[in-house]
Amino acid sequence: MSASPEAATTSLSPAAARRGRWQPVGLGQARIGSGFWAPRQTRNGDQAIPFGQQQLESAGNLHNLRLAAGIGDGEAIGPVFADSDVYKWLEAVAWEYGRNPSEELLERQRELTAIVAAAQREDGYLDSVVQLRYGDEGRYQQLVWSHEHYCAGHLIQAALAQVRCTGDRELLEVAIKLADHLVASFGDSDGEGDGKTVDVDGHPVIEMALVELYRETGTSAYLELARWFVEARGHGIIANHGHEPTYFSDRVPVREAATVEGHAVRAVYLAAGATDVALETGDAELLEALKRQFAHMWSTKTYVTGGLGARWDGEAFGDEHELPPDRAYAETCAAIGGIQWAWRMLLATGEAQYADAIERMLYNGFLAGVSLAGSEYFYVNPLQLRGSAHPDNNRSPAHGRRGWFDCACCPPNIMRTLASLDGYLASTSTDSVQLHQYAAGAVTAELPGRGSIGLTVETEYPWQGSVRVTVEQTADGPWALELRIPQWAEGATVDGAPVAAGEYARIEREWPVGAVVEVQLPMKPRAVTAHPRVDAVRGCVALERGPLVYAVEQVDQQANVDDLHLLTDADVAVSHDPSLLDGVTVLRTRGRTDTEVEVVAVPYYAWANREIGAMRVWLPRGDAGRSDRPAVKG
Amino acid sequence: MSASPEAATTSLSPAAARRGRWQPVGLGQARIGSGFWAPRQTRNGDQAIPFGQQQLESAGNLHNLRLAAGIGDGEAIGPVFADSDVYKWLEAVAWEYGRNPSEELLERQRELTAIVAAAQREDGYLDSVVQLRYGDEGRYQQLVWSHEHYCAGHLIQAALAQVRCTGDRELLEVAIKLADHLVASFGDSDGEGDGKTVDVDGHPVIEMALVELYRETGTSAYLELARWFVEARGHGIIANHGHEPTYFSDRVPVREAATVEGHAVRAVYLAAGATDVALETGDAELLEALKRQFAHMWSTKTYVTGGLGARWDGEAFGDEHELPPDRAYAETCAAIGGIQWAWRMLLATGEAQYADAIERMLYNGFLAGVSLAGSEYFYVNPLQLRGSAHPDNNRSPAHGRRGWFDCACCPPNIMRTLASLDGYLASTSTDSVQLHQYAAGAVTAELPGRGSIGLTVETEYPWQGSVRVTVEQTADGPWALELRIPQWAEGATVDGAPVAAGEYARIEREWPVGAVVEVQLPMKPRAVTAHPRVDAVRGCVALERGPLVYAVEQVDQQANVDDLHLLTDADVAVSHDPSLLDGVTVLRTRGRTDTEVEVVAVPYYAWANREIGAMRVWLPRGDAGRSDRPAVKG
Repeated sequence: MSASPEAATTSLSPAAARRGRWQPVGLGQARIGSGFWAPRQTRNGDQAIPFGQQQLESAGNLHNLRLAAGIGDGEAIGPVFADSDVYKWLEAVAWEYGRNPSEELLERQRELTAIVAAAQREDGYLDSVVQLRYGDEGRYQQLVWSHEHYCAGHLIQAALAQVRCTGDRELLEVAIKLADHLVASFGDSDGEGDGKTVDVDGHPVIEMALVELYRETGTSAYLELARWFVEARGHGIIANHGHEPTYFSDRVPVREAATVEGHAVRAVYLAAGATDVALETGDAELLEALKRQFAHMWSTKTYVTGGLGARWDGEAFGDEHELPPDRAYAETCAAIGGIQWAWRMLLATGEAQYADAIERMLYNGFLAGVSLAGSEYFYVNPLQLRGSAHPDNNRSPAHGRRGWFDCACCPPNIMRTLASLDGYLASTSTDSVQLHQYAAGAVTAELPGRGSIGLTVETEYPWQGSVRVTVEQTADGPWALELRIPQWAEGATVDGAPVAAGEYARIEREWPVGAVVEVQLPMKPRAVTAHPRVDAVRGCVALERGPLVYAVEQVDQQANVDDLHLLTDADVAVSHDPSLLDGVTVLRTRGRTDTEVEVVAVPYYAWANREIGAMRVWLPRGDAGRSDRPAVKG
Repeated sequence: MSASPEAATTSLSPAAARRGRWQPVGLGQARIGSGFWAPRQTRNGDQAIPFGQQQLESAGNLHNLRLAAGIGDGEAIGPVFADSDVYKWLEAVAWEYGRNPSEELLERQRELTAIVAAAQREDGYLDSVVQLRYGDEGRYQQLVWSHEHYCAGHLIQAALAQVRCTGDRELLEVAIKLADHLVASFGDSDGEGDGKTVDVDGHPVIEMALVELYRETGTSAYLELARWFVEARGHGIIANHGHEPTYFSDRVPVREAATVEGHAVRAVYLAAGATDVALETGDAELLEALKRQFAHMWSTKTYVTGGLGARWDGEAFGDEHELPPDRAYAETCAAIGGIQWAWRMLLATGEAQYADAIERMLYNGFLAGVSLAGSEYFYVNPLQLRGSAHPDNNRSPAHGRRGWFDCACCPPNIMRTLASLDGYLASTSTDSVQLHQYAAGAVTAELPGRGSIGLTVETEYPWQGSVRVTVEQTADGPWALELRIPQWAEGATVDGAPVAAGEYARIEREWPVGAVVEVQLPMKPRAVTAHPRVDAVRGCVALERGPLVYAVEQVDQQANVDDLHLLTDADVAVSHDPSLLDGVTVLRTRGRTDTEVEVVAVPYYAWANREIGAMRVWLPRGDAGRSDRPAVKG
């Protein structure tokens, strides 16, 4: 089966959604040129990706694949999912090459791809750790923990990025052989020796990957297997292995679930894959179930930062409104998975809420996961650190960001996300172009049979709220420009006229080259409060400005952050400091402990880049609801 | 070395403290006769202990020991610390026999003791799981996780209870052989083949056990090894095994530590053992360190219920003031360990704060761990359960109490604590008797050379605050009766005269037989607040009465507990309902959601005995500091 030209030219992973309301623009057709994200992407390419290769070498991931390829002697090192880190890194390299081609990247890619290809078994099976530790008999025997499908999924995603961005097909051939092996090995068995096993991987991601591989190749068996994996969950497969099903999103069938639960990354990866399946199979019931789950997640299990996963124990979603700021797990990978899910929901539904969600996750819960320097990472992203906090383990935020982890899922996940970020800016349909995320750069889109649209975007977003869109190239006849007005942007205008927040401002007309649209998003700081059932931040407010959530760090305060209350009736002064934290807009207002003091807030994403000290996103109100009564006990 | 007569007659485990300010009264000299605890002890003996034996059979703990004893064929089953559950159960049986001798208990004890004795290796080594899984070469190779010393510690404690309560020496012989094996195997090595290993068990308890074995036998090598285990921690032994030391209380030497941290049960067991070491070696510096640690724990890391351990992740103490009510771990075993530590601190210092702490842990954090029926258990003891809470794993409180656990440390720990509870009532010194916990019953104490003191105690405590102490037998000359006036009992009187709260009311005189002392502790309900740094319960109050913390359960309310606010300026009506929850005093007051409603509170220990629904100890104040502002996000 040959590659589908449609998929090959228009799909990105962020997914192409053939049946969705909107489609991604083609590869390279949305480009971040300057502004907020560009230097972050540059550091990702220049610092993080080369450093990542060193880490994959020293942590043993490449050692494992080399051994499986017959190079050298030894035993597998590290966690069972070690291969996946290599694949995520390869995906990042491909996207980075797409942004900024270089021979060096191609060499790095080809060197590692060759190892991966050589590690694959003749029948298509590939998982270096299982091969080395358990041999052929060990294949798929412990799927609940072995991560074999998880590694396969990341391999497929890397292969697709590689073929699309660099044209290299070597990894794609490996991916297809492996996918064919999965197709032959999993699904409903006839019980008469068809070789199929009814089982699912403990960690989803294969679902998204197989659907995208179907988009690339047109091979419907991949879509069918993805559909099967989604449907197979929630029927006791994992419980039959003696494990608690909740952790693995296996308690309730996806199409019946009312919420997300268990391990947050698993839950949102599964939901993203299920959205892909719903899109490509036209399964409206499944899509409705996913809408319901996303809404429940967003309204009861999501931090103000967009962080997902309240619990360290099981890296899991908590109960409704269980959102402790101090022990927020909010794994960086969960924010990434949340973005991937929201992107698919956005394409499927055309609802601005999903682009709003991407924005909140991207600028806050995700971005806090990487240092300003670009190559140190947070695994967990709490909304509070006490001054007395003590680092009790490797992932503790009290350590500050770290270069790598024993479980190194987050760093290469951040790398591939930053390198592919351009893909989230815009989408298109037969008669329109949507701008979802505002970044200085350019967007191109093809209207079928009507030619290309070219737009440039000028903005200092997120520091300033004005966005100027210029039509550089236009399609025949009328078409619509759709501009997301974030939910927080009450009072926004487009070309001076008021527009509603929380939806797209749609301007349909014949557009001459040179036409300009001016969006103004109000950037007044906001003091927000939580749902009253969020017990952990009762009586507290958080500061936001534009898409950014702010944090109060000890290094900026006169008072002890652990005791600081915010005077919410005080004015908030806004000033941009280009020398602070690579340039941030600072908020200054008033608070109190025993006496009144100035409170300085910086964007949450930038915390812990100077020193590790007390930090709070949520601050108790000092002007009402004073809770500092005589102490008894906790 | 023969048993020391002094220890044999006066020591209990709760520890005899030779150098402490006070000593425990002799075995059987403090007896709970009726009232609050007596029926709980009866159910423990009649229901829980026999049921526990069945569980030890069906869960495989006895199977393992039988296999190690050469009876039958098979492999070890269950966790590596499985033996310890048997030993805790044997300890419970011994104490229960001390309370209420029966041939049946003796038979049960002898049957299991014979298996244990047969499982012991000729050289004294004993750990059935290690013997079966790893053989002789596997001994002490993974001490950080193997729990070999932990199991040994519980064996020793069981053996001491057995010899003291039943006179049977068989288990003590096993314990001495094992302790001698430990003495030969651990300690500072001369590096020239003395066979000693410098290592510590990942889970403390051996320290307490060895000191108590020293008290029983007079063998100073046991005290010396306990001292060595305490001193060896915090010097990187466990980090050298590649583990994070905090979890194992191994980051800082005990005598330098400012707080407790890491796994809560490990931390408090270690501290209790270190207190024993400090007491028996006269190490004032070590005792000061333990005072400091207890004070820090109690003021910053203890729930209002006396629950210890804020985190599910690592079953650990959190940072200072990190005390979430919903995700409180507050393991039942941690409350038990806390009581054991506080008891040793009390004997060492004579400070009422430690008896107050025992009271808070005993009536709340500990007692909630067992059902009213007596044989279902909570592993974790949160202070809040949301109505929407979903049980995600075996230990989830949303399941309600359970009969047993895969990790069954708590049930037999509760059994031995209830069966030995009498030991915490009273203590003595050369010229005084102290009453620490008030329960209807009798206390006898010997004053050296001056004869016996006999007291009866009549009280409906904790439901009523009057305690009547009658002198039934008296010693020669003046002696002092010391009566604990709890910290919460402001306004207490003794014989009508005001006495200070938070210390002992001391009455020194010549006491005639028939003398009566009347203590009146005010039982007005109290609305208490937390330290303002306990962010998780900002703006909330909890209700207490006497030693009991109260909880609001959904089953008693008109309003949804998740939304309920307390009107703290409303009156609180007190009524005793003998038919509710085996008889409890109920508090009734006012609250609101949208409208004003009645709020009914029952003792926290009794929650989840009717149905599992929403429950809160901390309720937001509805009369001030209203925090139900428009929702934005968590």
